[in-house]
Amino acid sequence: LILAQTALETIPRELAQHPAVVADSKRRRKPPDEILLDRSVHHAAMSRLKEARSRGRPDIAYHVVLDVTCAPAYRCRSLKLYVHTRNDLVISLSEDVRPPKSYDRFRNLMEQLLVRRQVGEEKDLMTVKEMKLRDLIAEIKPGKVIGLSRLGNRADLHELVSGSMGKKPCFVVGGFPAGHFDDETTSLFHELCSIGGEGLEASLVVCRLVYEIEKSLGLG
Amino acid sequence: LILAQTALETIPRELAQHPAVVADSKRRRKPPDEILLDRSVHHAAMSRLKEARSRGRPDIAYHVVLDVTCAPAYRCRSLKLYVHTRNDLVISLSEDVRPPKSYDRFRNLMEQLLVRRQVGEEKDLMTVKEMKLRDLIAEIKPGKVIGLSRLGNRADLHELVSGSMGKKPCFVVGGFPAGHFDDETTSLFHELCSIGGEGLEASLVVCRLVYEIEKSLGLG
Repeated sequence: LILAQTALETIPRELAQHPAVVADSKRRRKPPDEILLDRSVHHAAMSRLKEARSRGRPDIAYHVVLDVTCAPAYRCRSLKLYVHTRNDLVISLSEDVRPPKSYDRFRNLMEQLLVRRQVGEEKDLMTVKEMKLRDLIAEIKPGKVIGLSRLGNRADLHELVSGSMGKKPCFVVGGFPAGHFDDETTSLFHELCSIGGEGLEASLVVCRLVYEIEKSLGLG
Repeated sequence: LILAQTALETIPRELAQHPAVVADSKRRRKPPDEILLDRSVHHAAMSRLKEARSRGRPDIAYHVVLDVTCAPAYRCRSLKLYVHTRNDLVISLSEDVRPPKSYDRFRNLMEQLLVRRQVGEEKDLMTVKEMKLRDLIAEIKPGKVIGLSRLGNRADLHELVSGSMGKKPCFVVGGFPAGHFDDETTSLFHELCSIGGEGLEASLVVCRLVYEIEKSLGLG
């Protein structure tokens, strides 16, 4: 399972001087380039940022990572999770990882990971490297790559999952709040499917997907 | 759907003088009794607190409220959500509510709600009143009350939901990190069911439950 083009990045250089960023940097006692860009804090600074609508939502990765890692399918190693960011960093999570439940601690861990490229105690539990989504998929070598997007063909999630479980599938869900996968990402999919008429939150899609995976595997 | 005995409360008076609480109170510029008890911040202060294991986890309510309110079943008014806290406060959420995605904003909103018993702009969207779980259920008048707990009888979630949808069911999920429903709560259930061998996170249970409700209703 890949959360792709995730809105998870440190504050870009061009916003470092904005008053909203300077104030937050002072409050948190960290330089801007070691703080996650977060619309709920840096909204004012983001107005002139390129592709602002799809950026600054670290809560999406937080929800998805927690939801996936606590699921039985994950704990019994039937599922692997990667978080691919919009800046082409790939975070790999070990099956034994227990990410912090508190958002503040999760945020601090992600900041450490994105800036120092490693985390102290849990260094084998979460790793990060520069990698395009294309290269990540080449490394995983899935039998089938299925993107989930409301622009895709309408599919029943249960049938989609049960019909592909024998093929070492790789499911790709967008980790951004608005917009769609870019053309390069879409070109990597064997299928693009929609599991809901309206746009669904990434965490909702992921929860349902993992649940169907468990059902297909006869877990629980 | 009721999230019951939720670990959502302001810091109790007996912890107000603890250094960890005083420091947080100073940092947040709020008195302790207007700050949510949070194990990730007040861990040191909680060691001698009664029933500490099942307290101080506001992130549980945060995850569940976000997960439920973004689901199609909720948006199309097929489902109502109540958060019952361990101090017998009941938060009712309107079908039109759009809770803040950011944890900090959610926390501030809950603090305002628990302390002032109302929220400014969104006053009809979230209301709170003192009420026991028993009285809430008497007010809702469900045809059937189903508690979900790993102490319950093993049930298939799909069958459980599809078999009860005609009966105006009320599902009750625990909003606490450890332990079980208390005896008074358990006495309110017509059935106590377990949908997973091991303990599952409340948000995971709720996501799966809402998904099965949507399937039963033929939504999406």
